[in-house]
Order: sequence, then C-alpha cells, then structure tokens
Amino acid sequence: MAVGLKQPGKLYPVQGLELATAAAGIRYQGRDDLLVISLSEGTNVSAVFTQNKCCAAPVTLAKAHMAHSETRALLINSGNANAVTGELGLQNASQSCAEVAKLLGVSTEQVLPFSTGVIGEQLNMTAMSNGIQSLLGQQSAGQLSDDNWLLAAQAIMTTDTVAKAVSRQLEIDGDLITITGITKGSGMICPNMATMLAYVATDANISKQNLDTLLRRGTQSSFNRITVDSDTSTNDALVLMATGKAQVKPLIGNSLEVFYQQLESVLVELATSIIRDGEGATKFVKVQVSGGSKQSDCSAIAYSIAHSPLVKTALFASDPNWGRILMALGKAPVESLDMSLVDIHIGPVSLIEKGQPAPSYTEEEGKAVFVEDEIHIHVELNQASESFHVWTSDLSHDYVSINADYRS
Amino acid sequence: MAVGLKQPGKLYPVQGLELATAAAGIRYQGRDDLLVISLSEGTNVSAVFTQNKCCAAPVTLAKAHMAHSETRALLINSGNANAVTGELGLQNASQSCAEVAKLLGVSTEQVLPFSTGVIGEQLNMTAMSNGIQSLLGQQSAGQLSDDNWLLAAQAIMTTDTVAKAVSRQLEIDGDLITITGITKGSGMICPNMATMLAYVATDANISKQNLDTLLRRGTQSSFNRITVDSDTSTNDALVLMATGKAQVKPLIGNSLEVFYQQLESVLVELATSIIRDGEGATKFVKVQVSGGSKQSDCSAIAYSIAHSPLVKTALFASDPNWGRILMALGKAPVESLDMSLVDIHIGPVSLIEKGQPAPSYTEEEGKAVFVEDEIHIHVELNQASESFHVWTSDLSHDYVSINADYRS
Repeated sequence: MAVGLKQPGKLYPVQGLELATAAAGIRYQGRDDLLVISLSEGTNVSAVFTQNKCCAAPVTLAKAHMAHSETRALLINSGNANAVTGELGLQNASQSCAEVAKLLGVSTEQVLPFSTGVIGEQLNMTAMSNGIQSLLGQQSAGQLSDDNWLLAAQAIMTTDTVAKAVSRQLEIDGDLITITGITKGSGMICPNMATMLAYVATDANISKQNLDTLLRRGTQSSFNRITVDSDTSTNDALVLMATGKAQVKPLIGNSLEVFYQQLESVLVELATSIIRDGEGATKFVKVQVSGGSKQSDCSAIAYSIAHSPLVKTALFASDPNWGRILMALGKAPVESLDMSLVDIHIGPVSLIEKGQPAPSYTEEEGKAVFVEDEIHIHVELNQASESFHVWTSDLSHDYVSINADYRS
Repeated sequence: MAVGLKQPGKLYPVQGLELATAAAGIRYQGRDDLLVISLSEGTNVSAVFTQNKCCAAPVTLAKAHMAHSETRALLINSGNANAVTGELGLQNASQSCAEVAKLLGVSTEQVLPFSTGVIGEQLNMTAMSNGIQSLLGQQSAGQLSDDNWLLAAQAIMTTDTVAKAVSRQLEIDGDLITITGITKGSGMICPNMATMLAYVATDANISKQNLDTLLRRGTQSSFNRITVDSDTSTNDALVLMATGKAQVKPLIGNSLEVFYQQLESVLVELATSIIRDGEGATKFVKVQVSGGSKQSDCSAIAYSIAHSPLVKTALFASDPNWGRILMALGKAPVESLDMSLVDIHIGPVSLIEKGQPAPSYTEEEGKAVFVEDEIHIHVELNQASESFHVWTSDLSHDYVSINADYRS
C-alpha cells in the first residue's frame, strides 16, 4: 500500500562503520530481526529519544550509556519493544549489551541497545544470545561488512511493508562524503523530539558539539513533522553517527552548512518514507499552515487537521468533504484564529477565501485533487509570517485491520 | 451496533412545551427532518454552544437571538449543518426563524435556529419553507403537541442508529416535576463546553440565573466527558428549558440541588447514549483517572487514552494489548507524571502496580475483561485526590465505512 515509495536505491558504504544482521527468532520467523552496527574509534554519535514518559528499557539504558562512554556499537532488535518490562527488562537490555561488548572487545557502556515491537513482553534472552553469537561469535568471522545497509533496513522492520533507506554522496572541500541512513516505522507514529528508529551515518568529520546541533535542527524539520495516528511510541530513537574517516579536518562554517542541507534532505526523505508506508496508508498528505503570528499556532492547526479521524477517512474516500477540514481548523486550540482572514487551497484549487467558500470552487475540481495519491492542504492564516507543515496519511480499513486483527 | 442502548422508554410531556415534526426533504427522503419546539410565555432558556471557531450560521444566530429576547421557539433541521455557508447561510437561518415567528405570532429574535448534517452546503430554502408551513401553517392545525417527544428525537437523527431520549419525574415540595430530554450525535463527537444537539426541558420553576448555573455544572459532568473520535462539531448545542408550569414558586436551596441531581442524571444518560451509539461503536468504555494533583492532568491523560487510535482498535479487537494504554498514558502532555506510582485496573483486574506489570496479571484475565461490551479502564496516579473520567467508544471497520463510504 506504500504511497509512491520504491525499494531503496544504491546504498553507499560509510567508511568506519560495519553492519551485520541475523534471524534470531525473537518474534518473527524466517527473517532477520537482529542488527549490530559497529563503529570505528573516534566516531561521534548524537541521538534523540522519545519523550513518552512510559519509555522503554533500552531507551533508558541507551541514554545512560551515551552519557558515560564513547559509543562503539548499536544493537537493535525488532519484534519486541522491551517496554513496560520493569527491572528484568533493564537487566535483559544490559546483558545483551554486555554480550555484544565482549565479542567486540569494548565495554558494555559503549554499546547502545534499541528495541521495537510489542510492548509489555519480556525479551526472549535465549534467542537474543544465540543471535548475538551468530552475528559476532567465532563462527561468524567476516559477517560484519560496510555493505550491509539494505539487510540492516530489512532487519529492523515491523509492520513496515517496504525497507526504508536513503544514501547520498557530496563533495565538500575536495573530500567525497557519504551520508547513508535507514529507518523503520509505520504505526504509533507521532514523534515528539524524536522518531521511530532511525540510524544515519556519515564519514564526514564533525565535532560532537556540531553533530548534536545538526541532529536537533534536522529532527525538527523531518521526524518531528510526521504523524500517522497521533500516537507516540515508547521506543522512538534517531541516531546520527559521524565516523570522520573521509576527512582530516572537522567540518565548520559554510562547509558544515552545505553538509547540513544534504543531511536534512536525507532526514526528510527517511521521515516521509514512514508516512508513505504508514499503516494502511493510501494517501500521502502535506498539511501546511502559513501566515500565523506564532509557529505554535500553525503547528496546532496543522496537527488538528492531520489527526482528525474525519479528515483522514474523507482522504481515504477521495471525498473532497472539505467541511471536515474547516471543522478541524476551528477546533484547534488557537486563541487568535480569525476565520474571516483564512484562505485554504487544496492542491492548486482555491477552496476558502476570507473564511467563505471560494465562489470559483466546484465539487469536480475538489474531487480531481482528492483522487490523487499525494495531496497538499494549505491553510493561509493571513495574520503574520510564521508557518509549519506536517506530513500525514489517511485512515483506511487496512489501518483498523492491521491494528485490530493481530497484535503488532 | 449501539452498545446496550434500547429504544427510549415512556417520555413524559413537559407542561408548557409543544413539539411538531415534518418530513421536509432537506436531505433525507421518507423520514422527518424538521422539528419545531414551541415554549409558553415565561419559560427560561439556557444554552451552551460549540467552541469550534468555525461555528455554523445557526449557532451564531441563536446566540445573538438569546442575548436580546425571551426565547419562544426552537427550529431544528437535520441533514444540513448550514456551516461555512457565509452570509447567505446567515440569511437563510434568519429567514427560517422569521417564517416560524410569523406563524407562531412571536418575533424573529424569539426563535432559535439549529442545524445538523453536512458542512459547507446551503440550505434548501424551498424545502425549509414548505416544511415550516406544513408544521405550523393553516392546514396543520393541531400538529403541535406535548406528546411528540419521540417523533422529535427521531427527526433530529443523522448517522444515529437509535433515537435518544430520557424522561424522569420527581416530587419536590409537593409538586410533581418532569424532566424530558432528547439528543442526537454519533460522530464528530468531542464536545468542548457543549455537545451535539440536545434539548432538555422541565416544567420546574427555575430562575434564569439558576438555570444557567445548573446547565454549566451539568454539562461539565455529562456532555463534556464524551468522545467518539476527538472531533468537535461546528454545530454543537445543548439547550435547557424550564417552563415553570409545575410550580408556583421558583426552586431554591436544597430543593434546587435535589432537582440538579436528577437533571445531571438525565444529562449523563443522554450524553452516554451518544457514545453507546457512536459511529461503528462495538464497545462502551469509561476511562477514569484518579489520584492526580490537578484535574487538568487527569483530563489530559483520560483523553490521551480515549483518543488513541491504537487503544481504540485494540478495544475493537477485544485484545488486552495493554501496552497501548501505557503508551497513551506516557504521551499525555502532563509534566508531573511519575510512572513509578501508577496503578492501572481494567475492570476488576489489576494490570499495573507501581508502574510495573502486576505479578498476578494473566492474559486470560485481561481477555475476559476486553471481550465484554462495556469496559472500565481505571488509572490511579497516587499523587493527590483530583480525578476525571471520560466515556468513549472503539474504532472499528464500521467507523471507517460510515465516514469514508458516503458523505455524512
């Protein structure tokens, strides 16, 4: 069902970073569900995590590990979120890190754990241990490779229907720099300062401080602008890694900005790929709100429209039932909204002018926009110059089936 | 599909109030879609309306009329919301009131208009005028009757599957007092200081000031505690009418409180009947949050759970996938939440104790609660003594069908 989403193209290796995947049988059978990413010494790592107060054991542990040590490896499993699993959940995550650390010759704190899948069940530690052994143990020599990005993208999938990965190369100051990233996520998508799992790496040379700044800036314009169903996962994490292997001197100034523009583009493509593959999605929708006096007003209106079940079912129906867009606009918690100033376009079609139905609007024009797979809703508040946009999907029968017919 | 909702029982007439219905053909064919309620002189009327900033023409006009005149009649149509209809929409609402006023011998401002149905289409004024004539014109003599409450409840239905009405009698200070009310609503239900259409009348003698107080208090504990889909209608209105015909002296003091308790019970039964008949509803769910330090915290958590599409699809599936309840709790915008204090019960079953899965909990116990039609989720924050509860329904295939397969 993924909307306009193809299999990933060529994924360039990132110097200084290797990956390995295994079918550990943690929940799924007959497919990879375990991933290790190994980082060369000197790699800078930044991460943002879910703001859900009911966060998972691996999130708690990864934050603690990052605070104390230089990260040298990431361990990621799908099928089980290890969330709301209490003290045993933390012990299991810690033990998994210790096993990886021993086999890689680093310390436990240098390994970050990540999990995604069902909430509230304990990890199958036998499967985890066997999986880790098969990835990094003696019989597995040579399985770690810098060319395993596609396998990695596949191993972290849950209800995703398409593997999600983006890769770019650019030349800065004479150095060829690679940015490659993967992500997963399809439901329980409304990141708050974080996202579903995403791992983005570069061989650019970027200081830890600059990397933190780039990540926070990039998150705001990518993963913090998507919503499938308004539900914020307990396990969201976005990790940005810079090995520095492609460059001798750190990126600064204008070169850093050139790099950031490319990084942001990768993050936006990864984030929107989650929406295109949103659970049951048949539409890819951008809701843009401009002309506000505060960005928070624009954001409240954009999310009010993007979260409305009635707007989302109308989108699924390809029905230009625009009264529901107005309803969602009007219910947004915004004090200063003046309906008599508002203009709304759907695609190129003028729908509302100064708060009233546009005289030129016809149902046929509206229908022509709404039957498309990709739809742009633009609300102009005509108050000032702040703006915000969010990407979302529709609410279909398949969304209900995916979330009611079996436990994901 | 309505959950535990029967056809209304006996509906007692309210002295001083008459009703008449007609099939005007405004949108629906072969059923009543127009209602006039006529009030005797001296009736006190209070109302609360939607807070949606994109409110409908009749809402704007009804507020203006109430501010200037004693209300003597209500005109209600279903099938068309007369919302986002601009200046012409206001003119049409005003003209309809004028036609009713002329036939009843009152002024236009003494008539309040109400509409419910599709947003963004102009009223068919030929149908409206003919309908009003058939109700109140010369050939219609005798159609107004105090015994037409059930017909009235049926005439205001849209996607409702069951007519909703409640009637009670009580004796206060030796006077037999009647409270009878009707309501409609099934989707776009998340009232904010108001509700879908509801009309409640009594022949008690209550001053305008006291009536306003009772209505605001009763709304907070009834219609402001229900949500089907988090979407707030453009046309919500709740009207409380007191004809005073059953009593010589106004109710005050303890007698007023006795009356209020019965009124609140009627309002809660009407409000929850909307949830029981929520679009596609197969479950009737009460989400209760107690032990908070602020009521607003309890309310934010209750709505976060009640609005979560993932919680609602799990309810539809009768799947005790309680990780989703924890997810929704954790994402609520509440600063002071301490997960390590939280207890959660579903029905009588202890699910979470001090933020961890209850040792005694079994999947079988959870399943036994979730297969029931009526489910009680109780979150105890163990911080202080504030509490809040909300009633909601599940998210089913039928919800998507109702809102995607045709325009309602």
